[in-house]
Amino acid sequence: MTGVTTLAGIGSTPRSGVGVARWYRPEANLTLPNRPDPSAVDPEVQRERFASAREAAREGIRRARDRAAERAGEEEAAVFDAHEAFLDDPGLVDDVESAIDDGTLAEHAVRDRFDEAVERFERMDGRMAERADDLRDVCDRLLRALLDAPTATDLASLPAGTVLLAERLTPSETADLDPETVAGIATVAGGRTSHAAIIARSLSIPAVVGVGEALAEIADGTEVLVDGEAGEIVVDPDESQRAAALNDDASVVPEPVSTADGRPIEVAANVGSAAELSPARDRGADGIGLFRTEFLFLDRESPPDEEEQYEAVVAALEAFPNDRVVVRTLDVGGDKRVPYLDLPEEPNPFLGRRGIRLSLEEHADLFERQLRALLRAAAHGGNEAAAGDLAVMFPMVSRIEEVEAALDAVESVAADLADEGVEHAVPELGAMVETPAAAFLADALANRLDFLSVGTNDLAGYVMVADRENDGVADYHDPLHPAVLRAIDRTTRGAEGTHAWVGMCGEMAGDPALTELLVGLGLEELSMSAVTVPAVKTRVREVDSAAARDLAEEALACETRGEVREVVGLDG
Amino acid sequence: MTGVTTLAGIGSTPRSGVGVARWYRPEANLTLPNRPDPSAVDPEVQRERFASAREAAREGIRRARDRAAERAGEEEAAVFDAHEAFLDDPGLVDDVESAIDDGTLAEHAVRDRFDEAVERFERMDGRMAERADDLRDVCDRLLRALLDAPTATDLASLPAGTVLLAERLTPSETADLDPETVAGIATVAGGRTSHAAIIARSLSIPAVVGVGEALAEIADGTEVLVDGEAGEIVVDPDESQRAAALNDDASVVPEPVSTADGRPIEVAANVGSAAELSPARDRGADGIGLFRTEFLFLDRESPPDEEEQYEAVVAALEAFPNDRVVVRTLDVGGDKRVPYLDLPEEPNPFLGRRGIRLSLEEHADLFERQLRALLRAAAHGGNEAAAGDLAVMFPMVSRIEEVEAALDAVESVAADLADEGVEHAVPELGAMVETPAAAFLADALANRLDFLSVGTNDLAGYVMVADRENDGVADYHDPLHPAVLRAIDRTTRGAEGTHAWVGMCGEMAGDPALTELLVGLGLEELSMSAVTVPAVKTRVREVDSAAARDLAEEALACETRGEVREVVGLDG
Repeated sequence: MTGVTTLAGIGSTPRSGVGVARWYRPEANLTLPNRPDPSAVDPEVQRERFASAREAAREGIRRARDRAAERAGEEEAAVFDAHEAFLDDPGLVDDVESAIDDGTLAEHAVRDRFDEAVERFERMDGRMAERADDLRDVCDRLLRALLDAPTATDLASLPAGTVLLAERLTPSETADLDPETVAGIATVAGGRTSHAAIIARSLSIPAVVGVGEALAEIADGTEVLVDGEAGEIVVDPDESQRAAALNDDASVVPEPVSTADGRPIEVAANVGSAAELSPARDRGADGIGLFRTEFLFLDRESPPDEEEQYEAVVAALEAFPNDRVVVRTLDVGGDKRVPYLDLPEEPNPFLGRRGIRLSLEEHADLFERQLRALLRAAAHGGNEAAAGDLAVMFPMVSRIEEVEAALDAVESVAADLADEGVEHAVPELGAMVETPAAAFLADALANRLDFLSVGTNDLAGYVMVADRENDGVADYHDPLHPAVLRAIDRTTRGAEGTHAWVGMCGEMAGDPALTELLVGLGLEELSMSAVTVPAVKTRVREVDSAAARDLAEEALACETRGEVREVVGLDG
Repeated sequence: MTGVTTLAGIGSTPRSGVGVARWYRPEANLTLPNRPDPSAVDPEVQRERFASAREAAREGIRRARDRAAERAGEEEAAVFDAHEAFLDDPGLVDDVESAIDDGTLAEHAVRDRFDEAVERFERMDGRMAERADDLRDVCDRLLRALLDAPTATDLASLPAGTVLLAERLTPSETADLDPETVAGIATVAGGRTSHAAIIARSLSIPAVVGVGEALAEIADGTEVLVDGEAGEIVVDPDESQRAAALNDDASVVPEPVSTADGRPIEVAANVGSAAELSPARDRGADGIGLFRTEFLFLDRESPPDEEEQYEAVVAALEAFPNDRVVVRTLDVGGDKRVPYLDLPEEPNPFLGRRGIRLSLEEHADLFERQLRALLRAAAHGGNEAAAGDLAVMFPMVSRIEEVEAALDAVESVAADLADEGVEHAVPELGAMVETPAAAFLADALANRLDFLSVGTNDLAGYVMVADRENDGVADYHDPLHPAVLRAIDRTTRGAEGTHAWVGMCGEMAGDPALTELLVGLGLEELSMSAVTVPAVKTRVREVDSAAARDLAEEALACETRGEVREVVGLDG
C-alpha cells in the first residue's frame, strides 16, 4: 500500500475508470460588462439582442434534447422541454424586457431577473429546488449567447481520458457527456437515484456521487481512479490499483445464469426507449424486465395511435427473439406529466392519480388502445419463434378491484379483436408491487396474475414515507431499510404456493452487492440498467441459494439500515 | 312501514336528530348593481369602499376564528388565518384596485377578480381546490360588506330544531353552527374525513355527508331525520322512527368497560385543545388517548415556553385524575404549517419532513423544551393521586434510529433536570404507527417502547398511497381496505409477546360498527372524538373476544373493501 488518498462516496455506475481530473465549473468565464447609464442604453437594440439570444439558446437546448434522447432515452430527454418552456415563460420574458425598457443591458436584465426567479425556486425544496438548476442552466445559455462566450468546459468534447469533477451535475450536463471520452465522473453532491446518476448509468460512465467537500482537494490534472463499484475515488492510484480497476468490468455473459446450486435467475434489462434495446442485448440481458412505454407518449402533441404502439412492442420482441419482454402499461401522473393528457394539479402528486388509477378512469380510452396494440403484438411471434414472449404489467396497483378491472379490460379488448377477426393473444399479465398495499395483498394478486414485479424505487419511498426527489428525506429513501426488505419479503412470501413468479425492476436489482440478498428473498428475476447486467450475472453464478436464504433471514431480522448494510457486507 | 323516503349517505357524526329542513344557499341574496359607465365611477370613492369592506371582512373572519377556536379547537380555527391571508394577498388586492382604477365599481371589481382566482384554484385538485372554497368565502364576505347585505342564512343563529341542508359546507360554515339549535346536517358532497365533517363531529352535531344529488329533492320546511349512525336521511319520519332516533344516543358510561367475556378495553378521547378536556370527561372517556399539542404552537408569533407547555399538560392530567393522558409531541409539517418554524416548501409535503423528523433535526431545540415540560409534568401527580398518568408518544416514526434518538433525547433531558435539581419523571413512551414502515417494524418498536398507537388516518393514506385531502383518490383512503387491516394486524402481531400495549387513535376507532373488528385485531385501547365514546363503550360490552377474533380473521382474509364491509355487517 502506498500513500494514496481514497475518498468514499456513493457508487452510482458500477464500473471503474482511470483518467485525468478536470473540474467543471459552469459559472466561470461569464464576466458581465459594467452597467452603463440607463440613458445610454437603446432598449430597441437590447430587446433585439435578447431575442437573438433566446433563439440561440433554443437551438442549443434542442440539440441537447436530441442528443439525450438518442443516448439516454426519451424520458431522460424530457427535461429539456422544461428548459425550452422557461425560454417562453411569459412572466420571465416580460420581466427581462421591462428591465431592458428601463435602460438595462440585456445581459444584466437576464442575470437580475433569472437570479430572482432562481431564488424563488430555491426557497422551495426537493423537485422545485431542482427547477432552480434548470433555470440556472437556461440563464447560462442566454448569457453565453449574449456575451458570445463559449461554455468554460465543452462537455460534449472533453479530451479522452477525462475524469470530470463537479459540485453537482444537472441531468442536461450529464447527457452532454461522451461515454467514449469520459473515463469517469465524481461529484460533491447527489445521490444514487438522482436523474443525473440514472443518466450516467444509462451511458455506462463510471460514477461516484455524494463524495462531499473532500473532493475539492483534488486538483485539475491529478490522476484519479473512479471506482463506481466500491463507491471510491482513488487519487494517484498505483499500478496494481489501475490494473485491477481497468480489468474489473465484468465480461458479458450471453447465456441465462443459475446460482451455484442450480437455481435459475433471469437477469433482464430496464429499457426506456427503442434505442436502448440493442445495447441491452449486447450486454447479455435475458430479455426486458421493464419496458417503459412512456417514451411513446412524451414530447408530442397527441397520444400515439395503436399502430405505432404495436410496432414499438414488436420491435422489442424482435430484439429479444428467445426471451421475455415485460411491457409496463402507461405510467404517468406523479412527477411524470404529459401536457395533452390534462392531468390534475395535486398538492401531493405522489399520493394522487398515477399509473393504473388513470388508466382505469380518466384515460380508459388510451388504456384500451394500448391493450389492443399489446394483444396484437402478443400474437406476432406466435408461430415464428422470431420474437420473444410478451408479458404486460400494470403500474401502481393498490387494490384488487383495480386488477379485476384491468383483467376485464383485457378480456373485453380480446373479445373486440376476435369480433373484428384480428389476430391477437393474451400475454402473461402481472402487477408492479410498488405500493405498501400491493405488498400486503401479494397473495391475492398472485392468485389472479402470472407474475409480480417489485418496483423498489417507489416501494421504498412509500414504505418509508419519503419523496425520493426531496433531499430533506434522502436518508429515508433506501431499499436497505429493514421495513422495505420486510415489504419485499411479504411480497415473495405472499406469492409462494401460487403459480406466479416474482421479479424486481427497481434500482436495487442492479447492485451486485445485493444480488445474494435478493436471491435469498426469493426473487426469480432481476431487471436493471443494462450496464449492470454482466456484473449481476457473474454474481448470480457465485451465489448459493441456501446461504442466500440465511443471509436474507439475517437481514430481515435487522432493525436498522446500518445493521442490514453490515449483514450484506457493505460498510455500516 | 309507511311511504317515507330514505336517502343513503355517509354517517359522519354518529348521532341522530330530527328537525325542519332548511337549505343553506350561500350564493343567494347577492345581486350586484348594473355596471355604470367607467367615466361615471370615482376610483377614489371605490378604493375607500373596498378598503372598508376589507376591514369589515377582517372583523368577521376574526370573530369566526375565535368562535371556532372556542368550540372546535385551535387546529380547526387555523383555517381562518388562511382567509385573512387572502384579504391581504398583494396580488389579489392589486388586481381589484387596478380594476377600480379602470372605472369599475368596487363590487364588480371584487367579483371579477375573485372569480378569476377561484377558477385558477379550481383547475387544481384536492387541497388546492379546497382553497377555492376559502376564496369564495372571502369574496362573499367582501360583497356582503359592500352591498350591506346580511348573509342569506345566519348560520350562528338558526331557529332551534333546524336540519341544515347544503351542497357542501366549508369548515368555517360548520364552525359557525350552534350545536344547541342545529338538529342535524346533511350535505350533497363531502366525505367522513373532510375538515368540515371533523368539526361537525367535534361539535356533536348529527351529520350525514355525501348524500348526492337526491338531497336536492327535499324542500325547505320538510321534517327530516338525520341518522348519523346508519348514514341515512329519512324524509317525513313516522312516530316510531322519530322516537327511536331521539333515544338512540348511547348513554354515558363513566366507568371503564370490558368485553362480555371480561377483556378490558380502554376507551379514551382524542383532544386538540384545553377546551375539549371537560366535554371528554363528561362523555365518560377513560382518559386521553391522543392529546395533540399543536394548539399550543398555532396562531402565535413564537413557540410557547416550557412553563406554558407544562401547565397545559398538567391541566390535562388534572382533568383525568385516575386515567392515562397520552400526549403526542409536536406533529407539524405535511399540511400543518407554523409560520415561525420556517418549514420547507415541498412538492409532496406528505412525503417530506413531518413529525419526529423535524423534532430530531431542524427543531431539536423545540423538542428538548417540550420534553422538559413533559418530564416535569410526569412528576406532577406522583404522590398526590390528584393527576393521571402521563404517557408520551412520537408521531410519524418510520425508522428505529428515530426511536433511539428520541429515547436518547429523553434520557439527556432527564439528566439535565436531575443536574438542575428539578422534580421530574420519565413517562410511558410510545410511537404512533402511521407509516407502513412502522407497521413492518412493530416488533422492533414494541421491544423498545411501552406502547404503540395506530393512527389510521395517515396509515390508510400511506398504505393505499392516497392523499386524504385529494378527492380524486377519496375511495382509496379507507381503513377498511384489506391492505390497511393487514397493516394493523402486522402491528398488533408484532407487539405480541412484548410488554407493549397497542391502541388506536384514528377516526376508525370511533366507529361503533367497527368495535368488534378492532377488538378482534388485538387493540387494547381505542381513542376517538369524545362524542362517540358512549356508543363505543356500550358496544365493547356486547363484544365477545373469541367471536371478535374470528371476525378479524375473516376480514383479514378478504381481498376487497366490499368483502370487508360485508363481513363487518356494513352494506357492501
